[in-house]
Amino acid sequence: MDKDKTREILLKVAEGKISVDDAMMNLKTAPFEDVGFARIDHHRKLRQGAAEVIYGAGKTYEQIEKIVSKMQDNGQETVIVTRIGCDDADRLAERFEIKYSCEGRIAVIGKIPEGTGKIAVVTGGTSDIPVAEEAAVTAEALGSRVIRIYDAGVAGIHRLFASLDDLMSARAVVAIAGMEGALASVVGGLVACPVIAVPTSVGYGASFGGLSALLSMLNSCASGVSVVNIDNGFGAGYIASMINRIGEEQGNR
Amino acid sequence: MDKDKTREILLKVAEGKISVDDAMMNLKTAPFEDVGFARIDHHRKLRQGAAEVIYGAGKTYEQIEKIVSKMQDNGQETVIVTRIGCDDADRLAERFEIKYSCEGRIAVIGKIPEGTGKIAVVTGGTSDIPVAEEAAVTAEALGSRVIRIYDAGVAGIHRLFASLDDLMSARAVVAIAGMEGALASVVGGLVACPVIAVPTSVGYGASFGGLSALLSMLNSCASGVSVVNIDNGFGAGYIASMINRIGEEQGNR
Amino acid sequence: MDKDKTREILLKVAEGKISVDDAMMNLKTAPFEDVGFARIDHHRKLRQGAAEVIYGAGKTYEQIEKIVSKMQDNGQETVIVTRIGCDDADRLAERFEIKYSCEGRIAVIGKIPEGTGKIAVVTGGTSDIPVAEEAAVTAEALGSRVIRIYDAGVAGIHRLFASLDDLMSARAVVAIAGMEGALASVVGGLVACPVIAVPTSVGYGASFGGLSALLSMLNSCASGVSVVNIDNGFGAGYIASMINRIGEEQGNR
Amino acid sequence: MDKDKTREILLKVAEGKISVDDAMMNLKTAPFEDVGFARIDHHRKLRQGAAEVIYGAGKTYEQIEKIVSKMQDNGQETVIVTRIGCDDADRLAERFEIKYSCEGRIAVIGKIPEGTGKIAVVTGGTSDIPVAEEAAVTAEALGSRVIRIYDAGVAGIHRLFASLDDLMSARAVVAIAGMEGALASVVGGLVACPVIAVPTSVGYGASFGGLSALLSMLNSCASGVSVVNIDNGFGAGYIASMINRIGEEQGNR
Amino acid sequence: MDKDKTREILLKVAEGKISVDDAMMNLKTAPFEDVGFARIDHHRKLRQGAAEVIYGAGKTYEQIEKIVSKMQDNGQETVIVTRIGCDDADRLAERFEIKYSCEGRIAVIGKIPEGTGKIAVVTGGTSDIPVAEEAAVTAEALGSRVIRIYDAGVAGIHRLFASLDDLMSARAVVAIAGMEGALASVVGGLVACPVIAVPTSVGYGASFGGLSALLSMLNSCASGVSVVNIDNGFGAGYIASMINRIGEEQGNR
Amino acid sequence: MDKDKTREILLKVAEGKISVDDAMMNLKTAPFEDVGFARIDHHRKLRQGAAEVIYGAGKTYEQIEKIVSKMQDNGQETVIVTRIGCDDADRLAERFEIKYSCEGRIAVIGKIPEGTGKIAVVTGGTSDIPVAEEAAVTAEALGSRVIRIYDAGVAGIHRLFASLDDLMSARAVVAIAGMEGALASVVGGLVACPVIAVPTSVGYGASFGGLSALLSMLNSCASGVSVVNIDNGFGAGYIASMINRIGEEQGNR
Amino acid sequence: MDKDKTREILLKVAEGKISVDDAMMNLKTAPFEDVGFARIDHHRKLRQGAAEVIYGAGKTYEQIEKIVSKMQDNGQETVIVTRIGCDDADRLAERFEIKYSCEGRIAVIGKIPEGTGKIAVVTGGTSDIPVAEEAAVTAEALGSRVIRIYDAGVAGIHRLFASLDDLMSARAVVAIAGMEGALASVVGGLVACPVIAVPTSVGYGASFGGLSALLSMLNSCASGVSVVNIDNGFGAGYIASMINRIGEEQGNR
Amino acid sequence: MDKDKTREILLKVAEGKISVDDAMMNLKTAPFEDVGFARIDHHRKLRQGAAEVIYGAGKTYEQIEKIVSKMQDNGQETVIVTRIGCDDADRLAERFEIKYSCEGRIAVIGKIPEGTGKIAVVTGGTSDIPVAEEAAVTAEALGSRVIRIYDAGVAGIHRLFASLDDLMSARAVVAIAGMEGALASVVGGLVACPVIAVPTSVGYGASFGGLSALLSMLNSCASGVSVVNIDNGFGAGYIASMINRIGEEQGNR
Repeated sequence: MDKDKTREILLKVAEGKISVDDAMMNLKTAPFEDVGFARIDHHRKLRQGAAEVIYGAGKTYEQIEKIVSKMQDNGQETVIVTRIGCDDADRLAERFEIKYSCEGRIAVIGKIPEGTGKIAVVTGGTSDIPVAEEAAVTAEALGSRVIRIYDAGVAGIHRLFASLDDLMSARAVVAIAGMEGALASVVGGLVACPVIAVPTSVGYGASFGGLSALLSMLNSCASGVSVVNIDNGFGAGYIASMINRIGEEQGNR
Repeated sequence: MDKDKTREILLKVAEGKISVDDAMMNLKTAPFEDVGFARIDHHRKLRQGAAEVIYGAGKTYEQIEKIVSKMQDNGQETVIVTRIGCDDADRLAERFEIKYSCEGRIAVIGKIPEGTGKIAVVTGGTSDIPVAEEAAVTAEALGSRVIRIYDAGVAGIHRLFASLDDLMSARAVVAIAGMEGALASVVGGLVACPVIAVPTSVGYGASFGGLSALLSMLNSCASGVSVVNIDNGFGAGYIASMINRIGEEQGNR
Repeated sequence: MDKDKTREILLKVAEGKISVDDAMMNLKTAPFEDVGFARIDHHRKLRQGAAEVIYGAGKTYEQIEKIVSKMQDNGQETVIVTRIGCDDADRLAERFEIKYSCEGRIAVIGKIPEGTGKIAVVTGGTSDIPVAEEAAVTAEALGSRVIRIYDAGVAGIHRLFASLDDLMSARAVVAIAGMEGALASVVGGLVACPVIAVPTSVGYGASFGGLSALLSMLNSCASGVSVVNIDNGFGAGYIASMINRIGEEQGNR
Repeated sequence: MDKDKTREILLKVAEGKISVDDAMMNLKTAPFEDVGFARIDHHRKLRQGAAEVIYGAGKTYEQIEKIVSKMQDNGQETVIVTRIGCDDADRLAERFEIKYSCEGRIAVIGKIPEGTGKIAVVTGGTSDIPVAEEAAVTAEALGSRVIRIYDAGVAGIHRLFASLDDLMSARAVVAIAGMEGALASVVGGLVACPVIAVPTSVGYGASFGGLSALLSMLNSCASGVSVVNIDNGFGAGYIASMINRIGEEQGNR
Repeated sequence: MDKDKTREILLKVAEGKISVDDAMMNLKTAPFEDVGFARIDHHRKLRQGAAEVIYGAGKTYEQIEKIVSKMQDNGQETVIVTRIGCDDADRLAERFEIKYSCEGRIAVIGKIPEGTGKIAVVTGGTSDIPVAEEAAVTAEALGSRVIRIYDAGVAGIHRLFASLDDLMSARAVVAIAGMEGALASVVGGLVACPVIAVPTSVGYGASFGGLSALLSMLNSCASGVSVVNIDNGFGAGYIASMINRIGEEQGNR
Repeated sequence: MDKDKTREILLKVAEGKISVDDAMMNLKTAPFEDVGFARIDHHRKLRQGAAEVIYGAGKTYEQIEKIVSKMQDNGQETVIVTRIGCDDADRLAERFEIKYSCEGRIAVIGKIPEGTGKIAVVTGGTSDIPVAEEAAVTAEALGSRVIRIYDAGVAGIHRLFASLDDLMSARAVVAIAGMEGALASVVGGLVACPVIAVPTSVGYGASFGGLSALLSMLNSCASGVSVVNIDNGFGAGYIASMINRIGEEQGNR
Repeated sequence: MDKDKTREILLKVAEGKISVDDAMMNLKTAPFEDVGFARIDHHRKLRQGAAEVIYGAGKTYEQIEKIVSKMQDNGQETVIVTRIGCDDADRLAERFEIKYSCEGRIAVIGKIPEGTGKIAVVTGGTSDIPVAEEAAVTAEALGSRVIRIYDAGVAGIHRLFASLDDLMSARAVVAIAGMEGALASVVGGLVACPVIAVPTSVGYGASFGGLSALLSMLNSCASGVSVVNIDNGFGAGYIASMINRIGEEQGNR
Repeated sequence: MDKDKTREILLKVAEGKISVDDAMMNLKTAPFEDVGFARIDHHRKLRQGAAEVIYGAGKTYEQIEKIVSKMQDNGQETVIVTRIGCDDADRLAERFEIKYSCEGRIAVIGKIPEGTGKIAVVTGGTSDIPVAEEAAVTAEALGSRVIRIYDAGVAGIHRLFASLDDLMSARAVVAIAGMEGALASVVGGLVACPVIAVPTSVGYGASFGGLSALLSMLNSCASGVSVVNIDNGFGAGYIASMINRIGEEQGNR
C-alpha cells in the first residue's frame, strides 16, 4: 500500500539484500509502532503532510504524553491533540513547546508553520466558537492562514455581508452552525470555493443534538457544500487545509 | 361551549319555553349535521369567519359533492376543498360556481371575497409552487390579498432581496421551502411580521420526505417563525389570513 | 436591506457629502456592533419593535452584562434575557432595573410597557408552567396583556372549558403541553384566533424529550395551529405579541 | 402448557393406557395441525372463546380457503379473516356462509353470535372508518354489541359530546384516530372504562405513517388508555370484546 | 359533560331556584378546584372509582402535600402518589396514614381496600421490578388482588411455565419487560384474558431507552395484547384494575 | 493480503524469475477479473469454500449470465444467484444446470454438494417463508443438511416445542421472524448452538419495515443470538453453513 | 452583495449618471431573470466558473427547454441538466448540441471543455454506477479529467488496491457506496487528497434508503472525508471539480 | 422442555413411583430456584456448557453475591459476572477465587478452563478496548484461546494487515468498532470464518450512541458477518466461543 516502500523492499529482495521472510515481515509491520494500547501510524506523516493528530477523547494524560513522545522521537515536527482537557494541556505544556486553545480543546505541540493561502472560518453564533477554534487551530497547525468571522448567522444577514470580502477571497470556507444550519447554504450561494459545513450540537428541543443542522446542511440547495460530523471542527479544518495546500503547492511549482 | 347559544337555551328554560329534556338535547346536538360518513360542523362558520373547508383526500367525488351541497343549503357562501384531484374539480365545476388551481389541488366554490390587507407567499424553488398555490388560494378565498414571490431560495439570495419591499410591507409571510428550509430563517430575519413556515417534501435522500426542512424551520434562529405540517399550504394560508384579518377588523372599527 | 438607510446613504453620495468608499463601508457595517464574541444587531430594534432579546444559554454572566450595557448605551429601553440562571439574574439586578421569573428563566431589564390587547397562555399541566412563564413574560415585555390559564389539560376537559371566555376573546392563544400535546388541537377547535403551540419536554418514555407532543401538534386536525420548537416559550410569546400588536396598531390609526 | 391435557396424558400413563414414548409425543404435538405452509392452532379455540382468526395479508385465496375448511372440519363455528381483499371475500362467499365488510377488509364465516354487552367504536375522521369497521366487525363476530360513533374528532369537540351517553355506558371504548391522535386522551378523560386506542396511518407529512398518532396515544395524559399497533382495528376489537365478555361471564353466573 | 349534574342544574333553572347566570357559572366551574399551580379534578372520583392519583414527578413536597390535603378534605378516602422519592414519602408518612414502595416510587395514602378478583403482574427480569411494583401497588390501591411473578423472561421459558396456573386464572395480566420485550407475546399466546404490556427502559445499546421493547410489544403476534408507555407501571395497573372491576361489579349484581 | 501468493511472488523475485515491476503488477492485480461493470473476485473461492455468490438485485439478465459464465470458465463448480426474478431464473435454466426457488428468489447453478451436518431453519409465520427458503437453499448449496420448521411463532408456543428435538440437535439455528421477532429469544433460550436471527419486513404499522424485529433480536435476553440485516436470508444461511462446516472439518480430521 | 457591481453603481450615482431611485432598483434586481416559474441566476456564472446547472427533477420538458434557451441567449456556453429522464434528453438532443448519460440521468448542453487535472471516481459496487456517472459527467462538464474505478468495494479489498496509483495521484477522490459505506474510510486512509463521500440508496432492510451509508461516512475515522447528500453525484462532482480547479488555476499563474 | 428430565419423570409415573400431581409439580418447577428477586436457571448449565453468567448491571452487591453463592452451592464451577463495578469485584475477591478485568467490567469466579482452539478479538481503536476485554474474558472463561488485536482500524489499514495470519487462522473473529464500523466489512472480506461484529458507542455527533456502527455492520457487504447489540462484548465472546467449541468437540470425537 506504500508504493515506494514496496518497491524498495522488492528491490532489496531482488538484490539479495534481505530474505524473503524478512521482506514479508517488512511489508506487514513497517509503518506503525505498537505501544500496547495503540498502533501509532508513523506512515501517515509521509502521506499526508506536516502534522500528525491524536484524538484525545477517552485517552489518559499518560497515554497522550506517551504517544506524543513516540511521535517526536520518530521525527514528527508538529503534533496536534484534539478533544483534550485544559488540565491535560497544562501538563503537556510543562514538558513540550505547546500552543493551545482551551475553548477549542485543541493543543499543538512543536513547530507551527507560517500560514499561507487563506481559509475563512465563519460561525452562526457565539456558542459555535469552540468548534470554530478547533477548526481554525487545526488549519493553522497544518500551515494555513485563517480568517475568523464569528456570530454572523442568517437571522441578521447584514452581519454576514459585512465580511463578504474575506469570504469571497478564501480558498475554502468552513461554515459552522447549530440550530437550523442555514448558514452553510447562504455562504455556499455567495462564494466560489468549496464550503466545508460543520453542524454543531448547539440548540435545544428539536435540534436533537445537531441532527437538525446536519440534515439541513446535507440538503443544502447551494452547490459546493460538503458536510462533516456534528461538532467535528478538526475534520473541517483538516479538509480546508488540504484544499488550501493544493493551491499553495501548485503556486509554488 | 357556545356561550351565547348556551345562554339562549338557558333563558328559554327559565322562561318555560322549552322543557329540560329538550334543552339537554339542544345543548348536545345543535351545531353539526350527521350525514353518515361525516359530521358536518355548521357551527364552525359562526366561530371562524367566512369560508368552510373540506379535506378532499380519501373522500370520493360523491362524498365531496354531498358535503358541499349540505353546506350551501346551510347558507355557507364560500366552500374550500383541499387536496382535490383535477378530475373531481372538473366535475364539481359542472354543478357549482368554482375557481380552482389544478397545481395546488384546491378548489373554491361560491363567492370569493375581494382581497384586503396583504400576505406574501414566498417559495425557495419552483417545485414548491403547488404547496404555495394551496396557501395562496386559501388566503384569497378567506378574503386576503396575496403577493406571490416564487423561486427565491437562499442559494442566490439576491433573488430574495429583490422582493424585499413586498416582504416588508406584508402583515404575514408564508415561507415555503423543501431541502434545507433555510428560507424561513432568512425571511424571519428580514421582516417584522409573523412568518408561517411550511416545510415541503421537495428534495431527495437525507431530506427524508420533508423532515430536514421541518427540523430546520423549527430550529430557526430568527424570532417570529412558527411552523405547520410538511406540505400543509392550506394551514399556512389559513393562519396568515387569520392574522391579516386581525389588522382588517381593527382597522375597520 | 435597510431601505431608508440605503436611500439616505445614496442621497449623501449623490450630494457629494460622502465618498464612494465611505458609502461602501457604511452600507456594510452600520447596523451591528462587534464586541468580539458577538455581533450585536442594533438594527433589529428599528425593524421589530420595542424590545431586544439576548439568548442567555451558553453565555457567561460577564458576556450577558456586556451585551445589556451596549444595548442600553445604544438607546434600547427594554432588554429581554432568556434562558438565564437565577443567580445571574440576581447579579444583573444589582446593576440594572430588572423584573424576572426564576421559574421561567427569563429577565426583563428596563422599562416594561403597559400591556394592551389580549393573549391567553394555557398549559396542559403544572410541569409546563416554566415554559409558559417564559412565553407570558416575553409577551408582557413586548407590550401585550396576558391571561394565564394553567393545568387545563384534556384529560379533564371541563377544566379547560371553565376558561372558555378568556380563550375566545384573546387575539392569540399560546397552547403549551407535553406528553401527547392534544391541548393544541382542542383549543384550536374552540377559538377563532391563531394558536401558537409549544410542545414541552415534559413526559417520559415514548415522549422522547418532547417529540411526541411536537408531532402531535404539527399534525393537529384543527386549522389555525402553528408550532414552535420544543420548550420554546420565548418564540411563542414573541409571535403572539406580534399578532396582538397588529390589532393594536390598526386600532390606533 | 395445556394444564388439563397434560394431566389427562399423565393419568393415562399412570393407568398404563399409553406408553411413555407415546405420552412424550402427545405432550408435544397435539394441539395444532400442520398443513405445510401453516401450523393451525386448534388449541386456541378452547382457550380463547368462540371464534378463530386468519390473518389474510400475504396469503393466497387457496391458502385462506384451505385453512377455513380445516377449521370448520375441526368444529370451529365462526372464522374471522382479516386483511382480505374484496375479490377473495367474494370467492369465499360462493362456498361459505359469510358476512363481510369490503371497507374494513374483514370477513366472518359461519355463525355470528348475538351481540351482548356494549362496546363503543369511535373515530376522529371519516378516513379512519376502514380501521373502525375492522374493529367493529371483529367485536361483533366475537359476540359483542357495538355502537359506532364516526367522525367525532377533537377539532369540533361538540360532535364527540353529542355521543357522550353511548361512550359513558360502554364496557370498553375503541378510540381510532390518525394525525395527532388526541381523540384517545379526550375520550379517556371522559369515560370510566378501558379505552383501547388505535393510531391510524391517516395523515400526511409529519404524521409519518401513523407514528405521530401512535406516540400521542402512548403518552396520553388520561389514565385507562392502552394502545395497539397502527391500523390494528382487529386487535382493538378483539381486546374490547375480551373485556366486554368478562362482564358478561360474571353477569351470567 | 356530567349528565346528571347538567340535568340537576337545568332543573333548578326550570324551577327558578337559581338564575341563568348562576347556572352558567355552575356548568363551567363545578368539578375542579384551582389551587394556583394545579386544578384538582374532584369530579374524576365520581366517574372513575375509589382512588385519586397524583403524578409526583416535577412537583415539590409542599405541592404534593397540599394536593393530598385538599383531596382528603374533599372526602377522598384513598390517594395514590406516583413517581415520588423515598424522602418525600417519608415526610408524607409523618402526617398521613401511608403505605409505600420505595422501589416502585409509589405511595398510597388513606384506606386500602381489600383486594378482590385477580391480576397477575409478571416481569422478564429483576431490573423490571420497580415498574412492576408501581403496577402492583396501583392495582392493590384500586381494590384488586395481585399475584407477582418476577424474573420469568423468555430466555428460560420454563420459569414462566411454572406460574402458568396463576397466569391462566387472572382476569388481566400485566406483562413487563425491557430489552426485546418478547414476554408480552409469549404470555399473550398462553392466556385468555387481556394482557397489558409495559415496555421498560431496562437494557442498553440498541434498546434505545425502551424503544425496542415498545415496538416489539406493539407488533405482538398474539391477539389480546395492548401497550402503555415505557415504564408506565401505574397506567398498566390502573387499566388491569379497571378490567378486574368489570368482573367484580358484574359478579356482585 | 494473500499470504501464500505473496510468498510465491517474492520467491520468484528472489530467484530472478520475474522482474520487480512484474512483481508489483502481480501483487496488485491477480485475484479478480474486470468485466467492465463488475470486478469478479475469483480469489474468494479459494478463501471461503465451495460456492461463489452473485447478488442479483439491480443486475440485468445479461449481466448475471455473463458473470455466471466467467465464474464457470474460471472453474467454479457451484454458483449461487440471490434476489433473482423467476423469469431470469427460467432463462438461466435454458442454458445452465440449475435448481431454484421462485419463492426464495434464489438459484443455484452447477453441482449441489450432498448435505452434511445439520442446520435448522425456523420461521415465526408463513409470510417469513421466502426469506427462510433463501437461507435454506444457500446453506444447501454450501453443503449443509437443512431442517425446515415453518410457522412456529411464539403466539402458540407449543408449535415450536413440537420441533424441539430438531432444534436441539442442530449445529446452528437460523431463526426468522417479522413483527415482534420474539422467536429468536425463545429459540436462543432453548438451544445450545449459535442462533442466527433474521428480522423480516413482515408486518405493518409500527413494524417499520422490519425495524421492530431487528431491534428486538439485537436486544435478545438470550445469549448466543447474533443478527443479520432485515430479510437477509442468504447471509444467515451462509453463516450457519460456515459454523456447520467447522464441525464437519474437525470431525473429518 | 456583488462588490464590483455595487461600486460601479455607486460611482454612477456619484457622477450623476443615474438617479438615486434607479440605483436602488439596480442594486436589487440586476443579476437574475424572472421567467414566471423560475428566477434564473445569470449572476452565478460570473461567480462560480464555466457551467450553469438545472435540477431537472419535477420540471417539465418545456420548462427545462425554456431555461436552457434563456441561459444560452445570455451567453452561457455549457449547461448541465441533472436528474433528467432519457426521453427528455432525447428531445433536447433534437434541438441542442448535447452529450448525456442515460444511466446517470445527466445531460450536458453546449461546449464541453477539455479535461485537465485529475479526479478519481470510485464505487463500492455496480449498483452505484448511476450516481458515479452523475458525478463523473458533472466534473467533466466543469473541465476536469476523470478516472473511473467501479466495483471496488471493501469486501474484496484487493480490487481497490489494484487502482491505488490512480487514487493516490488524484487531486480529489469521489467515493461512492451504499450499504455500509466503508469505502469512504478505507479510501480516506489511503490517499492524501480530499475525499468527497457520496452515500447511495443502494441496499435493503436496515440500509434505510442510504441512511446507513450516510451515517457511516459522517463518522469516518479517516481525516479528509466530507459528505454530500444521499445519491448526490452531481454535488460531489461539482466540489471535486472546484478543488481540482484550484490546482489548475494556481498552476497556470 | 428438558427432554431427558421429562422422560425420567414420565418413567417414574409409569412405574408408580410418583403421583400424577407430583409429576405435574416436577414438570413445572424443577430447573430453577426462586430467590425472591431472581429465578436462577440451574438448568441452563446442563444445556449450554461450563459457565453460568450474571448480568451485574442494576443489581446490588448483595444480590450478586447471593446468586454467585447459590450457583456454587448448585455445583457451578465457573461463574461470569458482566457489567460489574470494580468496587463490587474487589468485594467479591475477598470471598471468592476471582479473576477480573476492571476495564472490561467483567469478573470470572472459580475455575477458568485452559483455552483451546482460537478466537481473534480485533478492535478499530483504543477506545473500543473495554468492550473487547469483555468479549475476550468471556471467551476465555468459556474455554477458548483468545488472540487480541487492538487499534487496527481501517483508516490505517496496514495495521490490520500486519495481523492477517492471526485473523486467518481463527475459528471465529470478534470485530469491535465504533464510529463508522467499517472494520467488520474489511475483516469479513479477508477471513473464511464467521465474524461476530460488535458496534460500540465510541464516537460523537452522528454516531448516535453506536447507531452508526450498528447500521454499518448490519449492512456489511461481506458475507459471514453477524451482529450483536451495541457494546455487547459478552454476547460476541459467548457466540465466538460456541463456534470455537464446535470445532473442539468435533475434533475430540
